[in-house]
Amino acid sequence: MSKKQKSKSRPVSFADAARSALAASADFELGAIDPSSTPGYTGDKASGARDLVAVGRELGELQERLFAASRAGAPQKVLLILQAMDTAGKGGIVRHVIGAVDPQGVKLHAFKAPTAAEAKRDFLWRINKQLPGPGFIGVFDRSHYEDVLIHKVRGLSPAEEIERRYGAINDFEAQLADKDTTVIKVMLHISKDEQRARLAERLEREDKHWKFNPADIDEREVWADYMDAYETAIRRTHMPDAPWFVVPADRKWYARLAVATLLAEALKAIDPQWPAADFDVAEQKRRLAAS
Amino acid sequence: MSKKQKSKSRPVSFADAARSALAASADFELGAIDPSSTPGYTGDKASGARDLVAVGRELGELQERLFAASRAGAPQKVLLILQAMDTAGKGGIVRHVIGAVDPQGVKLHAFKAPTAAEAKRDFLWRINKQLPGPGFIGVFDRSHYEDVLIHKVRGLSPAEEIERRYGAINDFEAQLADKDTTVIKVMLHISKDEQRARLAERLEREDKHWKFNPADIDEREVWADYMDAYETAIRRTHMPDAPWFVVPADRKWYARLAVATLLAEALKAIDPQWPAADFDVAEQKRRLAAS
Repeated sequence: MSKKQKSKSRPVSFADAARSALAASADFELGAIDPSSTPGYTGDKASGARDLVAVGRELGELQERLFAASRAGAPQKVLLILQAMDTAGKGGIVRHVIGAVDPQGVKLHAFKAPTAAEAKRDFLWRINKQLPGPGFIGVFDRSHYEDVLIHKVRGLSPAEEIERRYGAINDFEAQLADKDTTVIKVMLHISKDEQRARLAERLEREDKHWKFNPADIDEREVWADYMDAYETAIRRTHMPDAPWFVVPADRKWYARLAVATLLAEALKAIDPQWPAADFDVAEQKRRLAAS
Repeated sequence: MSKKQKSKSRPVSFADAARSALAASADFELGAIDPSSTPGYTGDKASGARDLVAVGRELGELQERLFAASRAGAPQKVLLILQAMDTAGKGGIVRHVIGAVDPQGVKLHAFKAPTAAEAKRDFLWRINKQLPGPGFIGVFDRSHYEDVLIHKVRGLSPAEEIERRYGAINDFEAQLADKDTTVIKVMLHISKDEQRARLAERLEREDKHWKFNPADIDEREVWADYMDAYETAIRRTHMPDAPWFVVPADRKWYARLAVATLLAEALKAIDPQWPAADFDVAEQKRRLAAS
């Protein structure tokens, strides 16, 4: 019995620790974060998998409550923004964390390279069109941060424009927060060595070849530039109402548990309530019985 | 061991039986189908739950393969259309069947009453905008069939217009099939008594009040008209490339297993293949090792 209690209490304690263990800051250093570490969590892979099931169930219940509250007019919604180098595990987060939530309560969008029509507009134009409505958990697989990451590393936009965008992003996300959106920004932080191992697996397995792109190796040549761009972007856009969390991602089980926990904590902070009936329950019971 | 083998072979045999056991026809009679029956399936609730887990896993794998094939140019996609009276379990299908598939491979849309802008256009206009792209499983929670169901029962459109729509739907769905869409249309068939019991539960539980709408009871008064409208719509639009399946839904576990199985069979018929590498694997391994 004491063993059971222990395992039950584990997600709660990580729940308390996760935000502060993972939050970035205006002067954080990406190089100081070990991609194979498990900040705030004392369990191992096996307990992490068990805890993920428990947090997933919690997430599902909280999201249903968020959705129910929205039907009665509550405006709250959540937006999870996922950014990472290739193979860091965005897909696994969507599958194993977001997959625990009722699909009816999720609005997922994967941003690819902009189309010609999108490229003509301001970089936030296409982002605006994918925002979640009340009651939803929105998930961005990549986002407007590409416009200050790959654009910076590859020189796709002038330096002044990149500079302008940090401010534009802060203004944009402040508006989201004003409109009852809880914004959670996650960088999955993988090491260059772990990426090599994951790319090697894609090359080994014929059922993974479709996920491999030779350009992924070109990106490795400018790895340090990407890390610099991430560090700068996170420092410049880490805001109280739109915080960044840097999640070590060399251990997939940890990254999944961490993101699930951050999401669940965000929903608990909203504390959505089941709406009260806007009809006379006794009267409807009589009508139903007679029908 | 023989017991294990038996339980493993069960989904396979239902897989073989499901389509023919559930398919409608141009002269089928809805009244002849018992909503509490389990056509084609010999197991019980417990085995049904186990089999759903197995079919769900299969569905997830098949969808990943469909998605992978689409990245290499394969045009195939699947569209599942769900229609039913309230409380019949559309939401449960989405949660428990579609929830087994990677959210990245699903395009779900719930059609509500048309907006003013939508109502001005042809009834298929808003449908067209929600079709799944290559590699996706599209799911319609309600659909263009509302325009020949509630519109007929409640007289929201003239009889001639309803009549025109059956043909327009057949033309539209034939075009979908031409464009490599496997269309599966499901009516979840619940009994009026079972609906009363489910509505009563919504009235009993405070966490279910938000799902109850007094108008649901008004709809019960024209139950027979709805059954007639369903029967006519299904007869008139049951086509070889866009078949209807009438799934008895008084037992939730059966309806979920049946829809999961119909979907899995559709994907197996497509038989999507992992794409071959479009790069030199050995060369990329060398590049990766050096990176």
